[in-house]
Amino acid sequence: MKKTKKKYVVGIDLGGTKIYAAVVDAKGKILGAGRKKTKSEQGFATTVQRMAACVHEAVDAAAVPYDAIQAIGVGSPGPLDLKKGIIINTPNLKWKDAPLKKELKKLLQKPVYVDNDGNVGVLGEFAFGAARGAKDVVGLFVGTGIGGGVIINGRLLHGFNENAGELGHIIVNPDGPVCGCGNRGCLEAFASRTAIERDIRQALESGIVSQVLEGLENPQALLRSKRLLDAYQAGDAAVVPAIDRSAHYLGYGVASMLNIFNPQVVVIGGGLVEALGEMYVQRVREVAVANCFPIASREVQIVAASLKDDSAVLGAAMLAWGKR
Amino acid sequence: MKKTKKKYVVGIDLGGTKIYAAVVDAKGKILGAGRKKTKSEQGFATTVQRMAACVHEAVDAAAVPYDAIQAIGVGSPGPLDLKKGIIINTPNLKWKDAPLKKELKKLLQKPVYVDNDGNVGVLGEFAFGAARGAKDVVGLFVGTGIGGGVIINGRLLHGFNENAGELGHIIVNPDGPVCGCGNRGCLEAFASRTAIERDIRQALESGIVSQVLEGLENPQALLRSKRLLDAYQAGDAAVVPAIDRSAHYLGYGVASMLNIFNPQVVVIGGGLVEALGEMYVQRVREVAVANCFPIASREVQIVAASLKDDSAVLGAAMLAWGKR
Repeated sequence: MKKTKKKYVVGIDLGGTKIYAAVVDAKGKILGAGRKKTKSEQGFATTVQRMAACVHEAVDAAAVPYDAIQAIGVGSPGPLDLKKGIIINTPNLKWKDAPLKKELKKLLQKPVYVDNDGNVGVLGEFAFGAARGAKDVVGLFVGTGIGGGVIINGRLLHGFNENAGELGHIIVNPDGPVCGCGNRGCLEAFASRTAIERDIRQALESGIVSQVLEGLENPQALLRSKRLLDAYQAGDAAVVPAIDRSAHYLGYGVASMLNIFNPQVVVIGGGLVEALGEMYVQRVREVAVANCFPIASREVQIVAASLKDDSAVLGAAMLAWGKR
Repeated sequence: MKKTKKKYVVGIDLGGTKIYAAVVDAKGKILGAGRKKTKSEQGFATTVQRMAACVHEAVDAAAVPYDAIQAIGVGSPGPLDLKKGIIINTPNLKWKDAPLKKELKKLLQKPVYVDNDGNVGVLGEFAFGAARGAKDVVGLFVGTGIGGGVIINGRLLHGFNENAGELGHIIVNPDGPVCGCGNRGCLEAFASRTAIERDIRQALESGIVSQVLEGLENPQALLRSKRLLDAYQAGDAAVVPAIDRSAHYLGYGVASMLNIFNPQVVVIGGGLVEALGEMYVQRVREVAVANCFPIASREVQIVAASLKDDSAVLGAAMLAWGKR
């Protein structure tokens, strides 16, 4: 045990498939991490225990005394009841009214702060990443779903019921596909990784000639990012239109965000963006700038998230430090 | 001349077709008004002179000394350069880089404050109308175009280049009609009065049987609100689908606003809403609530503006009082 006088927090990124916890110092440095599968299908109690185990794993890896941990911050899929720290419900986790804050506090004996995963993502990028130094920031995180978060004048936008920032669920085309949220034509239903996968499968079923499944052990399993990227670069006839449609719709979504918020920085992050890289961000940027008022994009940066996997844990750490 | 010690401001609502100025006291009471046509086609200098004349007309009508006027607030179509008080450009007025603040100040010899018409509209409803008492408010004003404004924690959202709140230009369907702003599928292109008129004319051209033009002296002129309302209530086959489409798309737009801002109150105003009344607002409300996260509409009021024609002048007066 060392650094006994220093203070730390733990940020937790609770995802649909994995839990990632990290011990973080006041400057945003990660000292140790713990990772486990979420296993939400085994029930909320199991997942909370796994979250607590991740925290201990991270603290051990960081080699700091548990007493030095001031608080725990969690980025969770929403919608949430922030005051009570309850996950109201979420398509990816399947629980109802899960008392995340209360149960985690009981297991860890530390103050627990909870916020939406999109909110902590943009908070992380704002504090330590691609939006550092900006005061007005919009974040969009594209993965299984699309999370969002907004910072206005240096503070997270929360709204009346503390559920603002659900940017993946703006309606970009009411004639579009049904979204995981149950509504039709949300941005998420056009641009998420799930939407891309659906579009590729539909193209294959319709008889489009494609190499995307070639050599796969399990052709029914979700396509991995690397495979998507390789197929895109090879000009695959099923993959290219699916990814282009995602980038286009995300561009329309960003255009709307520019006209609504006129932010200084738009951060585009999440697993899909990380995998596809600048090529994808550039498409999004072009469509966004072409579809908003010129002044709304003047001197505005539309950039990839720079913290990669760490945006959410670092934002969650910010929550734990009481900054939001 | 009376009340020489009391202080007043003048709020101006600069519209595409008319100018409306009002002398307002600190409590939002209108003491006198002036109105003129905008005549923007005669050039910016003419319109500014007409604005100044409206101010004097309002001051005369209020019977207050000109010295008691502390400042002038203007709600103008955007986009604007707020710091310089310049109208950058706007489809309805056709000027480029019009130095509104500078010229009006020269003519009136008073401090002049300028903001976007949607912003002053929501500011008026927030200060004195349907959103009084709420801290998080979204306003949508449906007329020739669709103006918008957002209040977060009691203050107008302005953004990095001070052009936030262009809610009429969120993209609600990229396959939709071209908007006055030049982009495709904006909310304004589906739901504004201009969109309704276009849809009715297209229906008539396609041979739909309708009584909407019956007895009109000039069947090519813009349809008046009363005629639209009567035709809608009579079940007119050209008018009903056009107004329903407007209400539906405005509902989708409001659903997006609920998921983005999670406000306490959404105010729906403007000439079209005033004319069509609660029937229209009810349709918008139903579509909005059905298309957002349940928590984003929980205890949220979606209501008609209550100040009618006065939202913008009263909001402009708030600007003049230095509150924004």
